[in-house]
Amino acid sequence: MPSSSEWTNPLRDPRDARLPRIAGPSGMVIFGVTGDLAKKKLLPAIYDLAHRGLLPAGFTFVGFGRREWSNEQFQDYVRDAVEEKARTEFDEHVWQRLAEGMNFVQGNFDSNESFDELASTLSRLDKERGTGGNWAFYLSIPPNSFSDVCHQLDRTGMAVGGEKNWRRVVIEKPFGHDQESAHKLNEIVNAVFPEDAVFRIDHYLGKETVQNILALRFANQLFDPLWNAHYVDHVQITMAEDIGLGGRAGYYDGIGAARDVIQNHLLQLLALVAMEEPISFSPHEMQAEKVKVLRATRPIEPFSETTARGQYAAGWQGSEKVKGLREEEGFDPNSNTETYAACTLEINSRRWAGVPFYLRTGKRLGRRVTEIAIVFKNPPHQPFHPGQTASLGNNAVVIRVQPDEGVLMRFGSKVPGSAMEVRDVNMDFSYSEAFTEQSPEAYERLILDALLDEASLFPTNEEVELSWAILDPILDYWANNGAPDEYAAGSWGPESSDAILARDGRTWRRP
Amino acid sequence: MPSSSEWTNPLRDPRDARLPRIAGPSGMVIFGVTGDLAKKKLLPAIYDLAHRGLLPAGFTFVGFGRREWSNEQFQDYVRDAVEEKARTEFDEHVWQRLAEGMNFVQGNFDSNESFDELASTLSRLDKERGTGGNWAFYLSIPPNSFSDVCHQLDRTGMAVGGEKNWRRVVIEKPFGHDQESAHKLNEIVNAVFPEDAVFRIDHYLGKETVQNILALRFANQLFDPLWNAHYVDHVQITMAEDIGLGGRAGYYDGIGAARDVIQNHLLQLLALVAMEEPISFSPHEMQAEKVKVLRATRPIEPFSETTARGQYAAGWQGSEKVKGLREEEGFDPNSNTETYAACTLEINSRRWAGVPFYLRTGKRLGRRVTEIAIVFKNPPHQPFHPGQTASLGNNAVVIRVQPDEGVLMRFGSKVPGSAMEVRDVNMDFSYSEAFTEQSPEAYERLILDALLDEASLFPTNEEVELSWAILDPILDYWANNGAPDEYAAGSWGPESSDAILARDGRTWRRP
Repeated sequence: MPSSSEWTNPLRDPRDARLPRIAGPSGMVIFGVTGDLAKKKLLPAIYDLAHRGLLPAGFTFVGFGRREWSNEQFQDYVRDAVEEKARTEFDEHVWQRLAEGMNFVQGNFDSNESFDELASTLSRLDKERGTGGNWAFYLSIPPNSFSDVCHQLDRTGMAVGGEKNWRRVVIEKPFGHDQESAHKLNEIVNAVFPEDAVFRIDHYLGKETVQNILALRFANQLFDPLWNAHYVDHVQITMAEDIGLGGRAGYYDGIGAARDVIQNHLLQLLALVAMEEPISFSPHEMQAEKVKVLRATRPIEPFSETTARGQYAAGWQGSEKVKGLREEEGFDPNSNTETYAACTLEINSRRWAGVPFYLRTGKRLGRRVTEIAIVFKNPPHQPFHPGQTASLGNNAVVIRVQPDEGVLMRFGSKVPGSAMEVRDVNMDFSYSEAFTEQSPEAYERLILDALLDEASLFPTNEEVELSWAILDPILDYWANNGAPDEYAAGSWGPESSDAILARDGRTWRRP
Repeated sequence: MPSSSEWTNPLRDPRDARLPRIAGPSGMVIFGVTGDLAKKKLLPAIYDLAHRGLLPAGFTFVGFGRREWSNEQFQDYVRDAVEEKARTEFDEHVWQRLAEGMNFVQGNFDSNESFDELASTLSRLDKERGTGGNWAFYLSIPPNSFSDVCHQLDRTGMAVGGEKNWRRVVIEKPFGHDQESAHKLNEIVNAVFPEDAVFRIDHYLGKETVQNILALRFANQLFDPLWNAHYVDHVQITMAEDIGLGGRAGYYDGIGAARDVIQNHLLQLLALVAMEEPISFSPHEMQAEKVKVLRATRPIEPFSETTARGQYAAGWQGSEKVKGLREEEGFDPNSNTETYAACTLEINSRRWAGVPFYLRTGKRLGRRVTEIAIVFKNPPHQPFHPGQTASLGNNAVVIRVQPDEGVLMRFGSKVPGSAMEVRDVNMDFSYSEAFTEQSPEAYERLILDALLDEASLFPTNEEVELSWAILDPILDYWANNGAPDEYAAGSWGPESSDAILARDGRTWRRP
């Protein structure tokens, strides 16, 4: 059923879409406000939204945490975070207006008293600040605390709005560690918040180039006719990091690259690249198409040949000597948690049957890059002699998500000279060169969308569970089949990963 | 019938196509060696070929002209031309070897004596230089002299080779001024030289980017699926010059832009862009496909609405004050000869039915550029609100022939920001940036091809006559319907030219 927001959805709004979208009267409560994510991303993003004039005049936000802070101490903390990390320049006037609406409530997640105080604080702020009873609760906390917080929000009546006001919850991954745990987590949240009030953050979906996948595919005539199994040989989706785990090693142990990246970011990218055209970009239509394509997606077996996993070894990355995974502090040296994961998926649809989707992610790889490469088949016939096209690869369209966001096309062109020789050339489009407009941070976009009830870029409970259903058989196989391979720091993963594509006569791109 | 050269055609040669193609023992006679074309293009191109090591060791060439020159005087003349215009650096050693084979024969086109002397010179040179009786005759002379020269070459037996040697003729446009005169000219030439010994130069076909049309279309998978009436809205082929006629005004009067450019260069570009895939790039297969597409091409009527012509007015081009056409020296002020011509063609084939091909050429236009723009239809549906794609134009692939040879793609991309707005961006590939290899001059390529019996890039008598058959109805209409419109120097032609596309709801690209 289309939500009522379809009619105010700015993507369908008959007003000029280029007008800024400004949130209505509202406030936000952040649980876990002293954590890394809040400090590095959320607080700066809220300031940036204020600076861009996209928050309502009385925007109010409340930090909830264990520290014994006054409002002033909390404001100082936020100010430090903003001054250090905000994308836009620091403006004292903007800051003062924002700081006026900044409150701190000290408390514990399992304390009735703390939440009673929070409830009365929100009531008071509604009166003082004109927030209209509209509150978003941002759960920047470990999933094992979801249950307590949801219970308390329910008990105190904060979770549900009235006829004229709204309540929403924003949650961060990990959304479970397999389909079953994800389902339980969704049950906990959905017992208190109806699904259309739940905003699950996958910050990749807030990135400009990810949204540009929709523009490229559906606003143009050039790409769609080629976007199917007739012309596409295979698709490679890569998220490579050059850094290692460092201080996150303890947290990461037991999770691993597949759960941390493939289940959410890479499968969401796959869904956007592979889905059919939605009737509109309203949340309902978008989510329906993503669910449809995820439901048709399966891992290709045998996993011994179609998947790979690895752990980075000690070595050199550039000129820096780096630790191996098993020497990282907090990481169990006997752990089989992988820092590199690759798998092969198929999509059982008319559009994609027979086209493998190769997904890979890893830490301590050759360089930091996220990209989607659509690799095309060779032409059915070439009226050239093989020698003339000997150095010609497959045509490709590469969507670079980060860094240096843009699009690249690779095709064959004649080499200058009296003979006919065809060689690959790259045609490039760079976001930063093409536009003077600056890209907002993903969190700016997503926080604003949550305040606007614009859910198109947020995965639903169904999408989350379907993604686990795709990954679970691979995770089960890995759990029962020994240890990950080692790979050199600064390399592109273990040899077993190259073998996945070599088996099909293909190779990974070296981005 | 495939010519025997198919099996030695370097485009099909089983040897590595990247090996340099070197001409076998041979020589060339240039008629009109003191003319502008020889001085600026042919002589430098021959030197460049020698410098690149692509001419045989004993390569010999003979200038034929009225001047009373010794061989030494002729060599001095050639040396001046080479030093001034050659693309590659001047190398005394290369020059000396080339000069050894350089001879001059003084004579007139209607003199038996002169041609008898030429014949005995070639016999002598065959013995002295090892040219093996293989000679190309380059007719860089006005068409009204073709008859005399062909007659003399026939009378003296020079036109025909034996079983083990070859004779060829290379001719330059204009190939007539309408279909009838072209047919007569072809009869004169073909009465002496069999068609497979005739090499008609259209120097545009020697340009790298023109040959790259073949590579783009047929070596890739990305373009062909879109290259038809399902996806293409229309095609624009433009050759714009910023210069006026100057000293060429007298020669140009009575010819005009349509005969000078559309009949040959632009219709050849159309043929390469629109033709079906040839079985191979052998001359026979290439020419068969070009003939097929030209035979299916017709001008769209009524010509009052689908064609335009103009004469440039006096005015300013940049900071330079320039004369109007009717004030140019040697130009009849009452002449209706046009310096701007545009027309609309259709191709009656399954691939192209309903897709207009707009061709235009002119002098004193905004800037010098030759390009082919494939303009695509809008997508059948866009799940965007119209406001979001308001500034989005049609997708396009633009092949830039000159200057700054390359390929450009225009498509819609999301504008950075929290709203969805799609705007046109350009993705660019530049020949000079992509390749370290230098592009040879068109004449280097074409002279070498003629010596190698590689006729793929030379239009046949049939192509020439078909091109006139397309243009003649328009020329007839113009001859009977008043004078051309005036257009401002530095503009993009007369208003009537914009009206051609406006009638169809389209606009010319401003390159």
